[in-house]
Amino acid sequence: MKKTVFLIAAILVMSFSLGVAQQNVAEKLGYPAHTKLLIVHADDIGLAQSVNDATLTAFEKGGITSGSIMVPCPWFADFAEHYKDHPDLDVGIHLTLTAEWDVYKWGGVLPATEIPSLLDENGNFYASVEEVGQHADPLEVEKEVRAQIDKAIAYGITPTHIDTHMGSVMAKPELIEIYLKLGLEYKTPVFVPRMILLGMPEEAREQLKRDYVLVDNFFMMNTEDPGLSWAEAYGQMIEKIKPGLNVMIVHVAHDNAEMQAITANHPAFGAAWRARDLEYVLSQDFRNILEKQNIQLVTWKQIKEVM
Amino acid sequence: MKKTVFLIAAILVMSFSLGVAQQNVAEKLGYPAHTKLLIVHADDIGLAQSVNDATLTAFEKGGITSGSIMVPCPWFADFAEHYKDHPDLDVGIHLTLTAEWDVYKWGGVLPATEIPSLLDENGNFYASVEEVGQHADPLEVEKEVRAQIDKAIAYGITPTHIDTHMGSVMAKPELIEIYLKLGLEYKTPVFVPRMILLGMPEEAREQLKRDYVLVDNFFMMNTEDPGLSWAEAYGQMIEKIKPGLNVMIVHVAHDNAEMQAITANHPAFGAAWRARDLEYVLSQDFRNILEKQNIQLVTWKQIKEVM
Repeated sequence: MKKTVFLIAAILVMSFSLGVAQQNVAEKLGYPAHTKLLIVHADDIGLAQSVNDATLTAFEKGGITSGSIMVPCPWFADFAEHYKDHPDLDVGIHLTLTAEWDVYKWGGVLPATEIPSLLDENGNFYASVEEVGQHADPLEVEKEVRAQIDKAIAYGITPTHIDTHMGSVMAKPELIEIYLKLGLEYKTPVFVPRMILLGMPEEAREQLKRDYVLVDNFFMMNTEDPGLSWAEAYGQMIEKIKPGLNVMIVHVAHDNAEMQAITANHPAFGAAWRARDLEYVLSQDFRNILEKQNIQLVTWKQIKEVM
Repeated sequence: MKKTVFLIAAILVMSFSLGVAQQNVAEKLGYPAHTKLLIVHADDIGLAQSVNDATLTAFEKGGITSGSIMVPCPWFADFAEHYKDHPDLDVGIHLTLTAEWDVYKWGGVLPATEIPSLLDENGNFYASVEEVGQHADPLEVEKEVRAQIDKAIAYGITPTHIDTHMGSVMAKPELIEIYLKLGLEYKTPVFVPRMILLGMPEEAREQLKRDYVLVDNFFMMNTEDPGLSWAEAYGQMIEKIKPGLNVMIVHVAHDNAEMQAITANHPAFGAAWRARDLEYVLSQDFRNILEKQNIQLVTWKQIKEVM
């Protein structure tokens, strides 16, 4: 589960850097060129009531600046309804092509007949990004993710950005193309890690740098137990933040019966694990280290406005 | 919400009786002819984690004898997985054509393109039985409810009976025909209240009595606040039980955040309301009155075996 993201995150957390910090993003936003910008981003809105409630708490208390919603999930409409009264929430679309939990499943927002290559024998999304890569017809992916964005917009959400659950719409090059194209078409920032440039020919790299605000670095808790306290583990990641655009991805939820049942057999990204993420972003420890490291919190909406 | 069932229930609770008690059911099951048989039935399995957990508690502690599952709902697979290790649970299919909560929605198990007449503009089932009656194409209903039964069977469930959420597959005569037909085809008892005979011509009545084990009486809590304690209100209903086949329908859940969010704005059938149903079926009060009234608890499986 989440292996692709794990891999990318692991590489980045190991202080990998291309050394081409995108210093003008800060200036575009009105900050000095060398500002360490940080989006604190909650993934998986819409997954569960527990996640929605924890995310709203984190938004209200300033623990996160941004989040993204899984449109095909059971609790999408609940959050969308809340959003109607809180349209300033910085919410993007967490494009989803996987259903990774053992017994809590979903399929696409399109009819199963239109996206057969995305669904398993029970009509649910595949559990892993690897299976998406193997089976997904890019034409069906494009229809489905477009439908996810359009459904969110139809429910009244103005997405501030587009990203993708477990990196599923980056499972193979043809899908990355779709992912990038949608950002331009919807005039909405796309979460594109700068490291994606690595595998590209020169011309494509230049175009990407022209068309997108690239994420210089992103990090997340990615093990069941970091062997340190949550504050120490995040502290080490935050101390490595460099000038440029950084994204800290968190997965907040309450440790309750609903979330325990969804995440059964998955201690990493489980209910207690996610509750620790919530506790951390609300903590004084987090405030203190952000201040000590001179980190400037920003939102995807700010980036959308200067795109 | 649940208006059709309310109406039928209200009529029956008001001691309506056709006076044609089906005394041979008891004998078929091996009890004396005038036994008061009672199925204590939990509706809405699969609706939520809270409902699944409460239902399993009620099964384990003997508070219910039977229940039925909503195949299109988000927590279907969770219960189905549990069932694999507990195949003796008396579980039927709660055929579902409505999605009645404000922000927690679902559509059919079939692709939306195959059942357009069953779905609203967001691709969800309609909220009310009235809308189902207005819009539903019987051919699409038949395909969808058949798919619900088949999906449950594919997941390993052997249904002991078939009933229908909010009475939705009884929304109009053409749908009742489908509902009855499925029982014969799947060789599975169908929840058919005896009062259905009222509107039928003589020949159809005779055939129905030959082909089905009719439910002589059923009752449920059907108001937000009965003006009495839960035990007193159910006590009055239970005291009216007559010889024949009776069904007491309960809606059990825990009063927790998930259930509160699902049932927001619906105090009747809400989270606290359902927790009172759970508390009651587990109570000594319930045991005592069943004993005092000489009521024999039975299951749908017993009825299936003598059909």
